[in-house]
Amino acid sequence: MAKKRQLKLGALLHGVGGGTSMWRHPDAQPDASVNFEIYKRWIQKAEEGKMDLIFIADGLYINEKSIPHFLNRFEPITILSALASVSKNIGLVGTLSTSYSEPFTVSRQFASLDMISGGRAGWNIVTSPLEGSALNYSKKEHPEHDKRYRIATEFLEVARGLWDSWEDDAFVRNKETGVFFDPEKMHTLNHEGEFFSVKGPLNIARSKQGQPVIFQAGSSEVGKNYASKEADAVFTGHETLADAKAFYQDVKTRAASFGRNPDDVLIFPGISPIIGSTPEEAERKYQEVASLVTIENALNYLGRFFEHHDFSQYPLDEPFPDLGDLGKNSFQSGTDKIKKDAKEKGLTLRQVALQSATPRGNFIGTAEQVADRIQEWYEEGGADGFMITAAVPKGLEEFVDQVVPILQERGIYRTEYESDTLRGNLGLAVPENRYARAKAAAGRS
Amino acid sequence: MAKKRQLKLGALLHGVGGGTSMWRHPDAQPDASVNFEIYKRWIQKAEEGKMDLIFIADGLYINEKSIPHFLNRFEPITILSALASVSKNIGLVGTLSTSYSEPFTVSRQFASLDMISGGRAGWNIVTSPLEGSALNYSKKEHPEHDKRYRIATEFLEVARGLWDSWEDDAFVRNKETGVFFDPEKMHTLNHEGEFFSVKGPLNIARSKQGQPVIFQAGSSEVGKNYASKEADAVFTGHETLADAKAFYQDVKTRAASFGRNPDDVLIFPGISPIIGSTPEEAERKYQEVASLVTIENALNYLGRFFEHHDFSQYPLDEPFPDLGDLGKNSFQSGTDKIKKDAKEKGLTLRQVALQSATPRGNFIGTAEQVADRIQEWYEEGGADGFMITAAVPKGLEEFVDQVVPILQERGIYRTEYESDTLRGNLGLAVPENRYARAKAAAGRS
Repeated sequence: MAKKRQLKLGALLHGVGGGTSMWRHPDAQPDASVNFEIYKRWIQKAEEGKMDLIFIADGLYINEKSIPHFLNRFEPITILSALASVSKNIGLVGTLSTSYSEPFTVSRQFASLDMISGGRAGWNIVTSPLEGSALNYSKKEHPEHDKRYRIATEFLEVARGLWDSWEDDAFVRNKETGVFFDPEKMHTLNHEGEFFSVKGPLNIARSKQGQPVIFQAGSSEVGKNYASKEADAVFTGHETLADAKAFYQDVKTRAASFGRNPDDVLIFPGISPIIGSTPEEAERKYQEVASLVTIENALNYLGRFFEHHDFSQYPLDEPFPDLGDLGKNSFQSGTDKIKKDAKEKGLTLRQVALQSATPRGNFIGTAEQVADRIQEWYEEGGADGFMITAAVPKGLEEFVDQVVPILQERGIYRTEYESDTLRGNLGLAVPENRYARAKAAAGRS
Repeated sequence: MAKKRQLKLGALLHGVGGGTSMWRHPDAQPDASVNFEIYKRWIQKAEEGKMDLIFIADGLYINEKSIPHFLNRFEPITILSALASVSKNIGLVGTLSTSYSEPFTVSRQFASLDMISGGRAGWNIVTSPLEGSALNYSKKEHPEHDKRYRIATEFLEVARGLWDSWEDDAFVRNKETGVFFDPEKMHTLNHEGEFFSVKGPLNIARSKQGQPVIFQAGSSEVGKNYASKEADAVFTGHETLADAKAFYQDVKTRAASFGRNPDDVLIFPGISPIIGSTPEEAERKYQEVASLVTIENALNYLGRFFEHHDFSQYPLDEPFPDLGDLGKNSFQSGTDKIKKDAKEKGLTLRQVALQSATPRGNFIGTAEQVADRIQEWYEEGGADGFMITAAVPKGLEEFVDQVVPILQERGIYRTEYESDTLRGNLGLAVPENRYARAKAAAGRS
């Protein structure tokens, strides 16, 4: 019997918010990005809503123009680990860069988080879009976009190899014989590649979900190929259902072309629901937060995507400036889209900046309306699930209290966790250990 | 009024133990190194005993001869973070290598742990003694001993600089004016050194203890100078009170020669108490664990200190072999001592291996006797505190239940925490932010 398809939900825990000014809202807790009690309350709320996972984003470079949340926030590995011990079933997914890390350390930290949490870890692989990151990591320059993906490919190959260092039954721990492990089930990777040489083995075994779940968010051509080939789940963002469906179809088709079952790549558009008791109240809540954004905030916000470009040098009410290739080596797909939109729609710099800094999204309305829209995107092939970001204070709480029960009532979303691992809840198989598989294939197992 | 000097205590949480065979004991839980529930129980026991800190050791290379705990264990940053949220007052100290890490990542992870735990983080700086580490980190060779310390010196300089990126009152978060931070209190490090170039600022503020506490365990000449100059606390190990006193005096004198107050460097010998209701029962408990160690186990254990040297090639009952410089570039002080002892006492390989793998220590007896010995070392200038390692199953529990109350009764050890930060409990001052200090000095603050 085929398993029933079911909507997935994640919660992006984002401190004082991904925008510039939500912290100014009267109900906002302006130190949320470094307040553990708030993160704890959020993960427990998300777990109350039976959500699949929480998600921690990241970045490796700030300057005085960075948005508040980026200036002073928890580092992903530490906050995920701290949250592991105050939660039970929910997945713990965090961003970590393959451009500025060592595979032995990263695969080990995620494996350890996976073990501590009993199989709930997920790694969102990023190649670090911010040029400035190089300056914090003793590097002459930020690797160019496509090279970053070549590094990421080899990095993940190493990580997956290290994660399989120990077969699942390697640790026999026989007190009588004194045999702690079976040496035939310990594997030394001996990786030698273009960017990394890593011997192994890793000094930690696999968790009960086998390996951490791989997330990816690339939207450039190279990024989409990477995600379709390697990722278990893709974090994306779209303004319309048509765009979402096109992306969804594109990634699933690419996945099939790489010989994968398209169901094994889950697509999660990020959305920022704003819920009111009436549509008007929801709209008012959106406007309330949007009105806190100054044009200076908006220009700084926009600048970050273009290698921290200073947009205050241009006239605000003239057409969006020609920036040439600027942005190509940082947020490639995002900056391409901004430039294209500005040109096609004839937008001014002020319009582009405010649109970027106060995105309206499609999920503003009553709980019923938001649930309708979610169901529509889900059933019409725009999403396997959604990553929920709070766009107003209490945004997560309102979503869990008001929208989740409707989705449950409609039978498209769980009322109880199916599993206590992230793979289990996402409906993803436990990846077989590569060495055990090889032995089985050779009939020697 | 001068503050009363008080004994400090730490607990080394070491999974199935630092030796080869404790896991075989009938009462041992042989998966302890990757069992979060056990770590949670231990930290809560240590906190019940009002201990200053728990300590997580580490290593970056294993092979099939490594001891059980090293093969499959939690990574320090993740386990410390997970333990942060199930404890309240106790310090969280972990080992992290300066030879195979990036200062931006390491200082950030410790700062984040420090923020999550409300000022309880400590970093045990190691330079990674194991030659094999290079093979896991895409390096041609392990840096030689003294160079590792030069790297460590610059690494810590960078970390401390990054930790001061934000003055304590930098985040004003004024909702009315929209000012989130005061740009004059954000500082860009712009470090350019021999090994690292790191721009900064760090994307996280200081915790309420200012900066994580620095531990160090070097015992070579270079190591002792490093510890005396840089560390807040030194983790060491001695067989006799005379040795402990000599080391204590040496480090305190060196600290003074670097212009420091010797009280600001706390010396923690590691001890492995074994407690019985009679001296004979304690001795029996020691013998019970020692008898589980085979000579093969012991040779492997010894080999690790000498760059994973294969000692099975030598006759067991002849004088300890001449190894030349082997070990000099890994555990320098430890291997020097083993060679010297073997020569002076005319020990055979078997004797050296068994002594290394089943160290007896000086803290075996009734709770009263162990407390006497602790008090003696403490009062006679051999220690400011001790790092307790369980040498038998339930070793930590027995220590907390039986020895701690005696030390409390004698008035040399706390009955309640003085503080909820690690610096507060250790009696160490909060380091002033370097930029705030400079402004104060310039009379502009």
